[in-house]
Order: sequence, then structure tokens, then C-alpha cells
Amino acid sequence: MVDLLIENSILVTMDARRRVLKNGAVAIEDGIIVDVGDTDSLRKRHQAKEVVDASKMAVLPGLINTHVHLYQNLLKGLGDDTSLVDWCQATLFPLCRVMHRDSLAHNYDIGYYGALMATLEMIKSGTTCFVGMDGLNPMICKAMEETGIRGFHSLELADRWIPEDLTVPAQDQMKLAQGIVKKWHGAQNGRIKCMVGPSAPFCCTKELLQSAGEFASENGLWLNTHLSETQYEVDFIRKETGRRPTEFLHDIGLLGPKLLAVHCVWVDNGEIRLLKDNDVKVSHNPESNMKLGSGVAPVTEMLRQGITVAVATDGCGSNDNLDMFEAMRTAALLHKLSALDPKIISAQKVLEMSTIEAARAIGEESELGSIEVGKKADLVLINMDKPHLQPLHDIVRTLVYCANGADVDSVIIDGKKVYDRGRIPTVNEESIIQRAREITQRALGGGLSFRRVT
Amino acid sequence: MVDLLIENSILVTMDARRRVLKNGAVAIEDGIIVDVGDTDSLRKRHQAKEVVDASKMAVLPGLINTHVHLYQNLLKGLGDDTSLVDWCQATLFPLCRVMHRDSLAHNYDIGYYGALMATLEMIKSGTTCFVGMDGLNPMICKAMEETGIRGFHSLELADRWIPEDLTVPAQDQMKLAQGIVKKWHGAQNGRIKCMVGPSAPFCCTKELLQSAGEFASENGLWLNTHLSETQYEVDFIRKETGRRPTEFLHDIGLLGPKLLAVHCVWVDNGEIRLLKDNDVKVSHNPESNMKLGSGVAPVTEMLRQGITVAVATDGCGSNDNLDMFEAMRTAALLHKLSALDPKIISAQKVLEMSTIEAARAIGEESELGSIEVGKKADLVLINMDKPHLQPLHDIVRTLVYCANGADVDSVIIDGKKVYDRGRIPTVNEESIIQRAREITQRALGGGLSFRRVT
Repeated sequence: MVDLLIENSILVTMDARRRVLKNGAVAIEDGIIVDVGDTDSLRKRHQAKEVVDASKMAVLPGLINTHVHLYQNLLKGLGDDTSLVDWCQATLFPLCRVMHRDSLAHNYDIGYYGALMATLEMIKSGTTCFVGMDGLNPMICKAMEETGIRGFHSLELADRWIPEDLTVPAQDQMKLAQGIVKKWHGAQNGRIKCMVGPSAPFCCTKELLQSAGEFASENGLWLNTHLSETQYEVDFIRKETGRRPTEFLHDIGLLGPKLLAVHCVWVDNGEIRLLKDNDVKVSHNPESNMKLGSGVAPVTEMLRQGITVAVATDGCGSNDNLDMFEAMRTAALLHKLSALDPKIISAQKVLEMSTIEAARAIGEESELGSIEVGKKADLVLINMDKPHLQPLHDIVRTLVYCANGADVDSVIIDGKKVYDRGRIPTVNEESIIQRAREITQRALGGGLSFRRVT
Repeated sequence: MVDLLIENSILVTMDARRRVLKNGAVAIEDGIIVDVGDTDSLRKRHQAKEVVDASKMAVLPGLINTHVHLYQNLLKGLGDDTSLVDWCQATLFPLCRVMHRDSLAHNYDIGYYGALMATLEMIKSGTTCFVGMDGLNPMICKAMEETGIRGFHSLELADRWIPEDLTVPAQDQMKLAQGIVKKWHGAQNGRIKCMVGPSAPFCCTKELLQSAGEFASENGLWLNTHLSETQYEVDFIRKETGRRPTEFLHDIGLLGPKLLAVHCVWVDNGEIRLLKDNDVKVSHNPESNMKLGSGVAPVTEMLRQGITVAVATDGCGSNDNLDMFEAMRTAALLHKLSALDPKIISAQKVLEMSTIEAARAIGEESELGSIEVGKKADLVLINMDKPHLQPLHDIVRTLVYCANGADVDSVIIDGKKVYDRGRIPTVNEESIIQRAREITQRALGGGLSFRRVT
């Protein structure tokens, strides 16, 4: 007897043949997909403890958001009309200062409630797995444990460029990272994992970058870094090293198949070749790059060369939402525009970049990213019976171009319902929102001049 | 006694001072806003037949979508990986052929159900007024009458470029237009109006353009046309006339303050000056321009010169949704990117371009576009008590960058509830969706090869 049988759905498998089943069903046992096929066949083959009727619904593999900063959910709507550097000075660092002060008193609430709010937003909009580059906060994985989301805590490291009073000695950062990895990496049957996240070449000394690389290698972890997001960074590293940022990372041995590089906006042809030759994975954040006026990443060229590129939202400091449907749509629109060629990228491609290719970008393609027997049961149910999603001619295009996160009806992660027809069963949503408001008010109330309602 | 008192809201007035009231209230009588202020004051001043508690809600002036093709709601998800011209040949004209054949038998169902689906989508996502450029179908205004939306039926005219079997003689088109204007312009206490919509310079003979201009002038109607959407159009008109499209329209006397020109992507500096000097209004459709790879309209330059520019979605053939929240966000992101300058356009500006400036772009700024005493009661209530909209630092930025159409809770048009906490009270939504599916299936089933679920 299986635990769960989802039936009567439009099943978007994202398997190797990219099959869409018109009357599709999925059987789940112990958190694993054990059968996929048409509803009649699966009904014959399986008794189920629970049956979900997904009539008028599309079922998708859970979306994977390859780059987010969870704590920035507390900063929604504070950035606009400002450059990345100015925003860091005016908004980000003041918050970091409070987080830093709190952490010395073992108070990790800001990061914890930021993570709760971000994971709630992600779950409710169809994201089942993410890579969150956040500070060395032992409570972030706790939030993931509680809400039931799958994710990577990418342990952000930085030892320069940031204000001096926020700079923690590199060896202390490594020690903290070690503690979090020991406690959380692989927790909850592998639902919670860690990456090592040296923030960006210009925020890390060469020594810290190399320590991060060694630490990742010793612990079997992936590396994750921002790379060439802005022209500023390219100029900074060239001035310092005479090399472009990707070349510099290559020189010090950090490029490799277990590196997830975020943004890659200002990479030239030589750097694209380096990324390809070293099988580096790329996280593309179209909305963030647009909002900050950073530039257009050469995504279609990277795809043409066979680089694995995934879509992401970035943190709410620079987007300011975590809706992957919107990120997919914007990715498609942006590159059609950029090439002045609507044929250059399709809805199908950006959906791949948010499911199976995104799984490959984090080394999980054998476990996640498609609805196939043996993979983990991370699924999203989308209600298609709405005026803005009908008539339905092409399920993939309608999902990418017409749907948004609010059309998500239910979400299953590891075979468990973490969002059930509009309800979050795992945590108390209302009290989390309330507490997040209070904590943000406390942290920013006096220190920041932000526009309030009058 | 007033009819309706909305209280306890975050009231985004968009009045001349762009006031946001923290505990705001609006009183409505006979479809008109009769008082605006803080809740305590309005409670003292008014008895109300009905009170709406808008705690935890933002109240906005209804959004105005200045360009859409209603019938294209039946074509959602049929365009991708294709140019505008190819899409017309492969998808649009086959549908038009069926519409044309049906109309000869006085069957107007395709346009009617397209309009019902589009107006439902718009109402549910916070649009209270639109300009719909659609064919000469006498049932389109009927759909507006039934769903309760405010709008302009822009009577689309064309007599060349389109396939010969779809071309109706110009005088017959003008006669049909005359009939629709006579019956519907100003109907429902002015809720339904008409514009005259010569499709685009390259789809209309000079004679038709001039007839359209005369007809508009005689009937006190606005003109509405696509203008310089693509490089193709510029080349076409230059080859034919030796003039750029805007110059050509100026030569034949069509530029003026009652012209709403759509797209204006490929306008040069001289044309921008012509638009400004003649006080032409511009409808900007960022998502459509991106999806079709058309280009980036010089919106920030037009704004700098003082041209009235409004935001729009375009029809679902090239977007494929009518969510104005998304259109606002994309407009902001696109121009920040295009200038590589995040300071060049703000959330506040794109909200203006979708409310008060959009009202100005259709000549309704004294009636619509802001929450002020004496204006029509077209209002949108948005539920802000959700993880993706909290904490709330800046209401305008949060609405533009974080919200989407699905966050709309209720919509009021002409003082009447046309969307009420998730329910459409005016028409049977379910049966409209079902019938729209059947009609589209009948129309396209045999004639088009579109990808179905398998």
C-alpha cells in the first residue's frame, strides 16, 4: 500500500522525454515517487492510504530556487532608485549590524524569522528547494526543519569590503561554519544541507577563498559564490590582480563542477569558456539584475555552450519577491528582448532551468527536478481552473507566461503536505508574520529612515 | 446617508500630493467618492448603508490598462518562439477567419467570450478600466455591461496587410463602427465608451486613416493606434512614404491630444518631439515588447520631456496575461536595466502610470485615476496580510514589487462591488470558462496545430 496517490492531473513530468500526461497519476511511498503513469493504470496497481483528486490541476516537480538571501525577506520594499553599493550602505549594513550585535548575545531571531518568512513565501508559491546564502546563523536550518522546505544553507563568508565592525576573523567564521555543518548537513533525511558560500571575490581575501575551498573539499560540500554581478566587481578584481574575476577564481583553484556561481553578468567569452571547461554551474537572477541595473547575463550563449544554468529570484533586497513563476517568465522575456529574437529561448527551456536543470546545478539531478520513479516526492499542484489560465492550449507556456505563485494549491515535499489547499499545516503562519513585523520594527525602527505610511 | 463606507485601510490616494493615509476611509454615494480622510473623521461625518472593514488591506484607485485585445484571451499560450509577423500568420489570422465567417452569420460568440474572459481576468487582478482594441463586434460592449467593468471598445480598423479574405471594404467598416458607437458610446452612465482604432499605419490605407480621423472628430471620440511597435513597421512606412511613421501620421493630420499611440518603441528623437508637441498620449507595453523581441521603448526620455505615458499589458497573444501589477513591475525593471541605472524610474512612477497618468492618457483624469472627492468610485482592495507582502515598509514599493493580481480581495467600479472577497457576483464565472473552452476548441480545433497535453 502506497502512502499517497495523486490522480486525474495534467502531469508535467520533466522527465528525459519531457512527457506531459493528460490524465496522470503519481504514487508516493516513504517520501519517494514509486510509480508514474495514467490514472487508470495506477489505480489498478496501487492501494493508497490517501488519494488526492487533482482534477483541473497541473502537477509539476517542485520548483528549485538556486539563489536567495532569506533574511532579506525582512527588507522588502526598502530598495528602489538606488545602486547595489548604496543600498548595502543605507539598508543592508544597518540590519547586519543589529544581527551581529544580537548574535554576540546568542539572539538569532532576525535570521530565524527572515528564514521563516522566506520559506513560507517560497512554499506557498511552489518552490520546494532553494539555496539560501545567509550568514552563519545556527537557527536558519531550524526554520527549514520547521516549515518542511528542502534547502541548502549556503554559509556566507566575507572578510573585507564590508564595514570593519561587521568583520569577524576568518578563523572564527570557519569555526562557526564547521559547527553548523556538523549539526545540520544532511539533517531530516537529507532535506537540509549546507554549501560553503564565500560571498564574492571582492568581499573575500584570497586566503578566505582558499580556506573556503579546502573546507568544502574536506567536508564534501559544494561551493557557492556571487560572481561578476556588476562591472564594479570586474574593475575591482582586475585592478587588484590583473585578472578578470572568473580567471582569478580559476588561478586559485576554485572553479570546478561543484561550484554554483551566481549572476555571471559581466563574463566575457574567455570566462564563459572557463566556466564551461570546469563544468561550473550558473544561477541566473534576471529580476535582480534588472532591478539593480546590473546588466544582462549572457545566458543564451552559456546555454549554447552547454553550461548548466538555473533560474533564481535572488533575495528580497533586490527583487523583492520569491515567486519562481515570475522569475521564469522574466528570464524568458529578458533574453527574447536582449537578442531582439523571440525564438532564442522558450517557456519549456526556462521551466527546465527551474526544475531538472536547477537540480543539476546543485548536484541533485538524481534525486530532484522531475517526476520519475525513484526520485524524491517534491511536487506542486496548480489549480488551472481560473479565467487567467484558460483556455488551456499548452500547459508549459500557460504555466510560465500566465500563472504565478498564487495559483499554487498544494505543495508536497519528501512526500509530506507542507501546503494544503491554501493552508500551512506545519507552523502558525499568522504568529510568524506578526513576530517578523515586531522584530524588524525593533531592528530598523531607530536606525533607518524608511518611508512609512503616514 | 452614504451607500458605502470603506474604513481602516491603508489608503493610497494618488491625489496631487500622493497622500497615503494610514487609517484611511472612503465614502461613496451614487457611484461617486464623496469623502476621503481618516476613519474616525469619516465615521463621525457619515451614516452608511454598508460598511466595509478594510483592516490589513490597501485601497488603491482602480488600475487602468491602456492596451489590450480582449479576444486574444482565447489564444493564451499559443505564441512562443515566434515573431509577431509569423504569429499573425500561424495563429491570429486563422482565428480571425473563423470570427469573420461567424460574423457573416451574425454569430459573435468568439469576440463575446473572449471579452468575458478578459474582463473577468482584469477585474480579478485589480483593473477597473481598460482600452480594448478589438474588431467591430457588437457583443463586446455587452460583455462589459454584464461583468461591470469600465472600458473603451477601441474599434479596430484595417484594410491592408491582413489577408485579402479578411479585408472588409473601408466604408462597410465605418458603417459598422457607426452602429456600435451609436448604441454603446456613453452607455451605462458613461461606463462604456468607444475609441476609433485604425490598427497601425502599415495595416491601413491613407484613406482609411483619414476617414478614421474624421469619424473620431465628428463623434467626439479619441483615436487609438499601434505606432512603431517594430523596426519592420518603420521600414515599411519609410519605403512607402519616405517618412517615419510618426511623421507620416503628422503629415496627414492624425497627431493630437486625443490620440492614444500604443508601443512607440522605434521612435527617434524627432518623433518624440512630434509626440510631445502634439500632446499625443503613449501606451507602453513592456512585457509584450519583451516577449516579441520588439525592443525597448524610450519611455524615460518620453517622461523626461513631459509626455503622458501609461502602462499596459497588451493582449494575451503577446504577454500572455492581463495582470497590471506584473506590467508595472516589469516596466520599472526594464527601464532600470535599459539605462543600467536603478535610479531612473521608481515604483511610485509606474503606479502613477497605471492610475492617474493612465487616466490622463485616455482623457479621464477628472473622473478616474485617484481617490478624490468627486471622482468615480473605482477602487481596489488588496489583502496585505500575507508572508510575501510583510513586513510592510513602503506600501507603494510593496504593491509594485511584491504584490500581484491574485492579492486583490475586492474590486469596486462605479460604487458597485464587481469582485467581492474572491467572488464574482455579476456573472457565472464557471459557465463562462466552460463555454470559452468549447468555443475556442470549435474555432481552432481543426485549423491550428497547437501543442496539446498528450
